[in-house]
Amino acid sequence: RPLNKVLFFPSKVACLEHLFSPKTARSCFCPLPHGVETSFSRLLRHLLSASSSLDLCVFSFSNMDLSRAVLLLHQKGVTIRVLGDKDYSAITGSQIGVLRKAGICVRCDSGSVHMHHKFAVVDGRLLITGSLNWTLQAVQSNRENILITDEAELVQPFIEEFHRLWALNDPA
Amino acid sequence: RPLNKVLFFPSKVACLEHLFSPKTARSCFCPLPHGVETSFSRLLRHLLSASSSLDLCVFSFSNMDLSRAVLLLHQKGVTIRVLGDKDYSAITGSQIGVLRKAGICVRCDSGSVHMHHKFAVVDGRLLITGSLNWTLQAVQSNRENILITDEAELVQPFIEEFHRLWALNDPA
Ligand SMILES: [Zn+2]
Ligand SMILES: [Zn+2]
Repeated sequence: RPLNKVLFFPSKVACLEHLFSPKTARSCFCPLPHGVETSFSRLLRHLLSASSSLDLCVFSFSNMDLSRAVLLLHQKGVTIRVLGDKDYSAITGSQIGVLRKAGICVRCDSGSVHMHHKFAVVDGRLLITGSLNWTLQAVQSNRENILITDEAELVQPFIEEFHRLWALNDPA
Repeated sequence: RPLNKVLFFPSKVACLEHLFSPKTARSCFCPLPHGVETSFSRLLRHLLSASSSLDLCVFSFSNMDLSRAVLLLHQKGVTIRVLGDKDYSAITGSQIGVLRKAGICVRCDSGSVHMHHKFAVVDGRLLITGSLNWTLQAVQSNRENILITDEAELVQPFIEEFHRLWALNDPA
């Protein structure tokens, strides 16, 4: 049975520590609400479910929690490829440079006015896409949507487009 | 069998006249290519398939062809509701004022930093959503995606979110 989910934002703000370090989270004393599922915690949960690969194609990427999630997957040995927008990647607060320094494979699109996608493909089978840029404002302040699906008819074209854009922006 | 389609942009530029006036299009002598299907012509075709209702929730709306399509549906008696972003709707080139003057029901969202959605629901059964803003640049210059589906699990949440936002922004 196919997975089809929709998440709407802005998300409630809640502690996300349990998603990153399940062992120590019980002792988290931060002031945020604990034990609360939000649109954002659901989004992170689906990203963190990656066990072999994560392909990201994102216009803007400044959200620290999303960056932490990607770095955590990288540490776990998940193969990560990030395709960003050439202009946005240079902006203050962009996490693209942080990911690159951590050893993650990053390319910037230079063949269009803007690379405006905001999608992720998890393990070559789960598509996460929508209006949401990977920024704090998008998550906490804007009205946004994220659609999560493993329908092959929807996932496959995104996989192919990622491969096409990845090859197109090979710096070599 | 469910409909699941993905369109990628930028779109090739081609004459769209046949979509708007099928009778006279045969005699179009504009300099654009004719008889060519593009991502944009497919998007317009799905929008123009509306026979009873069209609910639009769009951050920015300046594209003249999309505006022409919505006005044509309005003339045909399709019930149209447009929810826009409060800041963007006031910007030069926005078609929101044009639609309002034509008698289409328009509301502007004022309860968030940005109403960043870009989705349409056709006849309460077909969802059109993605990264694409309804501008000329998005269609012709940016890398963008549009997902078209009639999967109830995906369409229904967007219908409910539209109703919620529409009621929330009732000016009365
Ligand atoms: Zn905490
Ligand atoms: Zn023509």
